[in-house]
Amino acid sequence: MRVATWVFSRLKELGVDVTFGLPGDFALPLYDGQAEAGMRTVTCTHEPGAAFAADAYSRLKGLGVALGTYGAGTLNMVNAVGMSYAEHTPLLIISGAPSLKERPPERPVHHTIRDWDTPLRVFRELTVEARPANDPHQAALEFERVVGAVVKHRRPGYFEIPTDVARLEIDPPTLGEFPKPRVDPAALDEAIREIRGALLSARRPVLYAGVGVRRFGLSAICVKLAETYGLPVVVSVLGKGVFPESHSHFAGVFMGALGGPTARGVLDASDCVLSLGVLRNDVNSGFWTDRFDKATWIEVAEDAVRIRHHVYPDLPLDAVVLALKHAGCRATAPVPRFECSVPEEKEVSQGASRLRVNQIIHELNRVAANRYAYVADIGDSWFLGLELKTDMFLAPGYYATMGYAVPAALGMSLAEPLRRPFVLVGDGAFQMTGCELSTLVRERLNPIILLLNNGGYMMLEALDRPCARYDLPRWDYVTMARAMGAEACRVETLDQFKAALQRAHQASCTFLIEAVLERSDRSPIMKRIEDVMRASRAASGVSRST
Amino acid sequence: MRVATWVFSRLKELGVDVTFGLPGDFALPLYDGQAEAGMRTVTCTHEPGAAFAADAYSRLKGLGVALGTYGAGTLNMVNAVGMSYAEHTPLLIISGAPSLKERPPERPVHHTIRDWDTPLRVFRELTVEARPANDPHQAALEFERVVGAVVKHRRPGYFEIPTDVARLEIDPPTLGEFPKPRVDPAALDEAIREIRGALLSARRPVLYAGVGVRRFGLSAICVKLAETYGLPVVVSVLGKGVFPESHSHFAGVFMGALGGPTARGVLDASDCVLSLGVLRNDVNSGFWTDRFDKATWIEVAEDAVRIRHHVYPDLPLDAVVLALKHAGCRATAPVPRFECSVPEEKEVSQGASRLRVNQIIHELNRVAANRYAYVADIGDSWFLGLELKTDMFLAPGYYATMGYAVPAALGMSLAEPLRRPFVLVGDGAFQMTGCELSTLVRERLNPIILLLNNGGYMMLEALDRPCARYDLPRWDYVTMARAMGAEACRVETLDQFKAALQRAHQASCTFLIEAVLERSDRSPIMKRIEDVMRASRAASGVSRST
Repeated sequence: MRVATWVFSRLKELGVDVTFGLPGDFALPLYDGQAEAGMRTVTCTHEPGAAFAADAYSRLKGLGVALGTYGAGTLNMVNAVGMSYAEHTPLLIISGAPSLKERPPERPVHHTIRDWDTPLRVFRELTVEARPANDPHQAALEFERVVGAVVKHRRPGYFEIPTDVARLEIDPPTLGEFPKPRVDPAALDEAIREIRGALLSARRPVLYAGVGVRRFGLSAICVKLAETYGLPVVVSVLGKGVFPESHSHFAGVFMGALGGPTARGVLDASDCVLSLGVLRNDVNSGFWTDRFDKATWIEVAEDAVRIRHHVYPDLPLDAVVLALKHAGCRATAPVPRFECSVPEEKEVSQGASRLRVNQIIHELNRVAANRYAYVADIGDSWFLGLELKTDMFLAPGYYATMGYAVPAALGMSLAEPLRRPFVLVGDGAFQMTGCELSTLVRERLNPIILLLNNGGYMMLEALDRPCARYDLPRWDYVTMARAMGAEACRVETLDQFKAALQRAHQASCTFLIEAVLERSDRSPIMKRIEDVMRASRAASGVSRST
Repeated sequence: MRVATWVFSRLKELGVDVTFGLPGDFALPLYDGQAEAGMRTVTCTHEPGAAFAADAYSRLKGLGVALGTYGAGTLNMVNAVGMSYAEHTPLLIISGAPSLKERPPERPVHHTIRDWDTPLRVFRELTVEARPANDPHQAALEFERVVGAVVKHRRPGYFEIPTDVARLEIDPPTLGEFPKPRVDPAALDEAIREIRGALLSARRPVLYAGVGVRRFGLSAICVKLAETYGLPVVVSVLGKGVFPESHSHFAGVFMGALGGPTARGVLDASDCVLSLGVLRNDVNSGFWTDRFDKATWIEVAEDAVRIRHHVYPDLPLDAVVLALKHAGCRATAPVPRFECSVPEEKEVSQGASRLRVNQIIHELNRVAANRYAYVADIGDSWFLGLELKTDMFLAPGYYATMGYAVPAALGMSLAEPLRRPFVLVGDGAFQMTGCELSTLVRERLNPIILLLNNGGYMMLEALDRPCARYDLPRWDYVTMARAMGAEACRVETLDQFKAALQRAHQASCTFLIEAVLERSDRSPIMKRIEDVMRASRAASGVSRST
């Protein structure tokens, strides 16, 4: 079997059934290998889209693969790989490379930069493992090292295969599942007793669930855990969707002073926060307005448990959660139902007036709860998305890169074919990678894309001040979507929006709804951000005009 | 003066009059600084476009600047920076960064990856100098180091400014031009005597001009040099446009066995090749089919001279060319005029039949010679471009990344406002970055964009074999261009193409012409590549089907 064919056969064995990428001359043997291995591949329009699609796929399936040519191909994926690293996504980049036979020092080839290993060194900064298959006899072993590290650490990896190596025949090694990390039962037992004791003795314990719960496939077990111990459940911004939001214990998405009051109230009032797989940063702490306290927060990270000032190293999240569930059982008062909805707007009932962000939130929560798998881009589309009731939600809510959502819908569609993706994207992000809509059409996928057109980078305007530099050119998005083969319509009122949702729901193809919004219209979260920034500018006496 | 304001004031002093970029929260103080310094900026739709635009600007002006936010912004520019490194372009990336005050170790912010310096380390692999302005008192000095290295080495650099540093007041240092590198007059004299001697004693000397001639602004001097010594002039692929192609000494673009016969004949027959600033790689040697020979090639590189087996280090290209011109004077036979045109096609006169690539070449050479500044994307658009008579031509002809041409037209328009850009782009490359057309419209620029729509990645098909995986989705490009505010039309015959060129020439706005081509239609160069590949497959007995 050829090296390239073996690589894709191995990936199939590991549960990957499609890759995302673009061909290029140094990647041609990889494409041949895929075909020989019977691996499906989706050709995207541009490498950033391919990497975002593969990232979304890996978030849902536990491993995703993006494929590109050497240098000029995979270097376009660097930003997406940075995101995957920051957000703990098991994304594997496979790159073609010039033949080893064609590398005398005086003979540089196209796509090379400083030397042959420039892309490799770049990806070393952004991955847990980056290796070239420069020895055919070691290629399978090297690949196992990279993909093993990706799966183990839930972080990206990079594997580079020269064209001649890709075509060489090898004896395919027989490999199985990756070994589970060994867990010290005594350490686990000690940690569980400590956590259980803290939960049982607390007056207002709460479960704070983060993205690690999804990475380890623990959503269903978390439900049991919350029910067993009688815990209300708050999720982090990046963790939105890891806990079913229709569940009676659900208490909202936490974003500190910038988020809704319910989640904040529950978390702030708790005397024992059981944090599971939460990646805490500025955004995920509501810009450091959480009341994080080592005395009351038990941090079950992906690979360790931290309680007060001590650490249990090498305890994987899944082992801890499972053991904790088994150890549970507490007679408890029923957990109250929490009201997490957005305050109604006065205009909500006026269907013929200008459509507003809050009306969109209400309408989606009314008709679409759990009908769709949401994926949100960064901007007010994301803040709007955080208000939606759903148990399937993806967004780069930690790294916060723009341009994610449309390409991610590709990966979502193929990883979860039973759930129709619903894309929330602003005009700024759509202008970056929105043409990947063409790939959705080509693959006959049927996401609904809600393009929130407020005419500019309004998140930046909320952070800064009204300013012409945040204006975006006004594209005719509906015409463009149709020119790429999608169905599309433009809406300006609530009534039109309702009708469009209905049409989109009945359509079996990629469907774009352009919602034209007032420039000053804001979601509740963005309104709070704007108010905070305005107050802070007023306090510091800064008065700048455009 | 604030640090950010000083940076852009300094760039104005160095001749930069516009930057290209996208705002983002960590870049807001940079945008304020630009505004205060009176620097114009162009907001692109996506960072890859901004970097390509800045690269094109820097190719023509000697320094170009792309601006982005930390991580999620500038990491989208990595591929373009790799290209700039490979092709010796003085491109400066300026990145925002999180405030130094907000960097306690336990408080990661959005856009961060492994640690604060991940983007810095990535850019170190791709630049001659990458530095952060982490000490406000050293910020100006650090900036001078980066921009000085960029200008000196004609390679990219990266400068990162935390938000708090950007806003700090400094005493602006007074700085002038960068000092010229010192040249040892004795070494120069010795080298010149040797080169001159070789040229004068040769029977068929030839000047082989590469991109270094443009980097040092030596085109006019090269004309004099060629006339003084009576040298025919061949240009390299990446060097196309550095020598006026209407000049009687011009003998074509060299691409070895894959290029036209005239340039190959002249270079191969020469007993003394004076190579000036040529970057030799697979593409630029016609896939190693040149007759490069240390015994007969004098290599004047950008920073050294190589003759046979000895090297004169530290002799800059401009000093050598100037001194050589002054030393010249040879009574010589007149240089013959060379015929470099593409063989006529039988169908050329049949204006109503399906438009062909060769007809496009003839028509552009007939009506548009030197009327436009051409910029070509990679694919057959590039090979077609290599056949056009022009003295202004840009393409990533060494690194060979796709997606360059449409965004590059932004940089060209602003660097050379008197010359209308004419973009040659295939459907594959247009699907990557073609939406930067919107930015051209917004900036009221008037390039003509010729989109060669052959329905697929036909360069890959030429290298490989007919294969469905090279098909591209068929967009309605004309409708899309109009939806972004451009004028546009579709042509399928030569007559329609002629009429469209006429309309585009009269229009004062961004104008897209979609030329619908047969899938199998090839430029002369791509035809030769396909023939070589087919012969090589036949020889190796490989017979693969789709």
